[in-house]
Amino acid sequence: MSHNSMILNLFFFNPQGDYRFSWRHPDAPEHEVFTLSYYTTLARKAEAATLDALFIADHTGIWDSGLAHYANARLEPLTLLSALAAVTDNIGLMATASTSYTEPYNLARYFASLDFLSNGRASWNIVTSWLEEEAANFGLDQIPQHSNRYQRAGEFIDVVTRLWDSWDDGALLFDKPRGLFADADKVHHLNHRGDFFKVRGPLNVPRPPQGHPVLVQAGSSEAGKQLAASRADMHFVFIKSIEQGKAYREEMNQRLNALGRSPEDFKIIAGVLPVVVNSETEKAERQQLNAALMSDRMAIDLLSAYLKLDLSPYPHDEPLPPLPDEANFDGIRTTLQLIRDYDPALTILELGRLLLQSSDSWLVMGTAQEVADTLAEIYLSGAADGFNLMFPLLPGDFDRFAEQVVPVLKAKGVMKTEYAPGTLREKLGLPLAKNHFA
Amino acid sequence: MSHNSMILNLFFFNPQGDYRFSWRHPDAPEHEVFTLSYYTTLARKAEAATLDALFIADHTGIWDSGLAHYANARLEPLTLLSALAAVTDNIGLMATASTSYTEPYNLARYFASLDFLSNGRASWNIVTSWLEEEAANFGLDQIPQHSNRYQRAGEFIDVVTRLWDSWDDGALLFDKPRGLFADADKVHHLNHRGDFFKVRGPLNVPRPPQGHPVLVQAGSSEAGKQLAASRADMHFVFIKSIEQGKAYREEMNQRLNALGRSPEDFKIIAGVLPVVVNSETEKAERQQLNAALMSDRMAIDLLSAYLKLDLSPYPHDEPLPPLPDEANFDGIRTTLQLIRDYDPALTILELGRLLLQSSDSWLVMGTAQEVADTLAEIYLSGAADGFNLMFPLLPGDFDRFAEQVVPVLKAKGVMKTEYAPGTLREKLGLPLAKNHFA
Repeated sequence: MSHNSMILNLFFFNPQGDYRFSWRHPDAPEHEVFTLSYYTTLARKAEAATLDALFIADHTGIWDSGLAHYANARLEPLTLLSALAAVTDNIGLMATASTSYTEPYNLARYFASLDFLSNGRASWNIVTSWLEEEAANFGLDQIPQHSNRYQRAGEFIDVVTRLWDSWDDGALLFDKPRGLFADADKVHHLNHRGDFFKVRGPLNVPRPPQGHPVLVQAGSSEAGKQLAASRADMHFVFIKSIEQGKAYREEMNQRLNALGRSPEDFKIIAGVLPVVVNSETEKAERQQLNAALMSDRMAIDLLSAYLKLDLSPYPHDEPLPPLPDEANFDGIRTTLQLIRDYDPALTILELGRLLLQSSDSWLVMGTAQEVADTLAEIYLSGAADGFNLMFPLLPGDFDRFAEQVVPVLKAKGVMKTEYAPGTLREKLGLPLAKNHFA
Repeated sequence: MSHNSMILNLFFFNPQGDYRFSWRHPDAPEHEVFTLSYYTTLARKAEAATLDALFIADHTGIWDSGLAHYANARLEPLTLLSALAAVTDNIGLMATASTSYTEPYNLARYFASLDFLSNGRASWNIVTSWLEEEAANFGLDQIPQHSNRYQRAGEFIDVVTRLWDSWDDGALLFDKPRGLFADADKVHHLNHRGDFFKVRGPLNVPRPPQGHPVLVQAGSSEAGKQLAASRADMHFVFIKSIEQGKAYREEMNQRLNALGRSPEDFKIIAGVLPVVVNSETEKAERQQLNAALMSDRMAIDLLSAYLKLDLSPYPHDEPLPPLPDEANFDGIRTTLQLIRDYDPALTILELGRLLLQSSDSWLVMGTAQEVADTLAEIYLSGAADGFNLMFPLLPGDFDRFAEQVVPVLKAKGVMKTEYAPGTLREKLGLPLAKNHFA
């Protein structure tokens, strides 16, 4: 791997920034987060900084505990990124979509179409969904079991990639004199019959420019890691130290090797919260502001949601009650493990407020030089191939990063200074997607 | 109704034009139909001509009888129109989506998001899907019964509109000092439990700019007409004469009145195939070209698909075998009826070739003046509020229409010369969408 290829994605879920309280910042956007122009400005700035992709997280429901205090209303990623395809040229477009509450034929079409619209810049962040609020919007009384969701996800991805492959690259003939639109021998029925899906095919969109839009997967449970190693191009992880990242990479390399895949074909992206502060005073001010903007209610709600356990009746100035058993836990097992890793002496409120400020991510706060040095060190150590940049405050923290940190990263030689030609898959140095029907 | 408000939509399904053989025309586009720039050019021309909307038909499968000769591969409407939202300002964006193979929560989000991205220009063309090829992509051995599909569609629309209503217009507070993002009393759970769906809500997108994106419905079976009268803003029909249109309008008015709705709030749009030819010689050449481009195979395939009956073993120089009984017919009942209305002495091949050139639509061929006169006459008679313009050849027939017919329509005072302000709903003179939770 060349050293100037650190991957950097502008990540967002809340359009105001990664914190549940980001929207309360005096400079936070209000109604404009429901306009295209807000995102167009962000996307163009990201492209001017030669970032690799816009990465939009998603739920298929509103996370509505404490609705009044934090309501993550927002636009839907596939439609938003399709619109942004029209106003950008090079940046990747990573849309989150759930395998639990959609049909593979529909998702295969949306992503194939987005890939054509963007000249090969589409990417699918695959999630299985873990909120009860989501399940309740799709006819279920409770979310499907963790193992069931991952089995479905595996089959779902296999169906989607085969649908993308159902037209060979040379299937379109446009032979007007002979009246041959397509070479019928190069258009394939799947006739898939699995545990979850029965899909005939072919897709009604030809094979997309990338063959397969870039597949991203987050989730570091056992099932998640195996799904990523077997099917993803990019894996979104949470690490808090270089040692942890290197150990994780090593584990994933073993999984990849066991599956006959090359580790270079698998990019690991760590979630970081980059915050540029230019003095100790600014840093202190920032921390004071955070403390003022967050509320106890938000902290308890977040911890309750992560643990799938209503903590409001528990004394908030005492440590957590016994945690759920991971093997039977249908929430985010990665997050459950991260919570276990905190000091068990922390009270519910202390832990909730910590999580509220960090999500599961590595907080990288300092001067532009310090932020750049830290990201470069993580990257050069091999602990991650790049980062999902989860800015606490949008657009402010991102603007400062683009203006101050990006030039330092480029000067250090760890970040590209211009886009490589070709599709997103090519720009990221990922291998061509093989056609299953070849 | 004012007389200068004829509604005109640029309609397409095949990106090369409405005929199955359109792609064979010497000037027909080839690979460019899979690029955004092809549609951007069309959309901008349509907006320059002050057309009301882009109307994109769709199937959730490929119509793959005779795949080699006619393969309707194309981009997906929601993603395509989201991209076009970014490069247009006024034109409506009508996307077809099926109630049979999607989930209401997902569709409600896509359309609400498109409505925000386009500043209130989204519209949903509601279809129930009738092709076996579609059913087979969604786990079914055969398509659901006609009555079942329409029952599901009714409930589906009710859930989607209530999801759009689940945030009151004033629900977003952004009260930063008090930490109140939303007024929780103005965000509603549906707790819907019906025959087909169980959906909790609320949506995770606030109420869209139009309240409800404009609802369009095509399909003139008894169930289709009742669905349209009870829930649609716009109804897409096929008529072949002014008398037929006026009788249809009268029937729909009675249905609307019986439901307590005002006929002015319900726009009827007829499908027409407008072709500008500037001399009898050009007309003859056009007809000869059509005859040369179509094939017997396409004709038999089309008629077989419409009748859900493989006609290939029947003698093609004899009339049709007995037609299916409408009451048990799960295809397009409107089309079945149109086929019944043709001269029963026509042979299978003759009828197939006729359908191949006309779809179900009124062919309006003549000089620009003649085309404009015919459209004005239909419109002023009250037989239709406007037209879905189904150009046989794209972009050529549309370019000629925009350059030659549109100025005549404007000079005649039957077409607006500039866009009205506001959302698509307002531009079309449709009433505000009431909030179910109000």
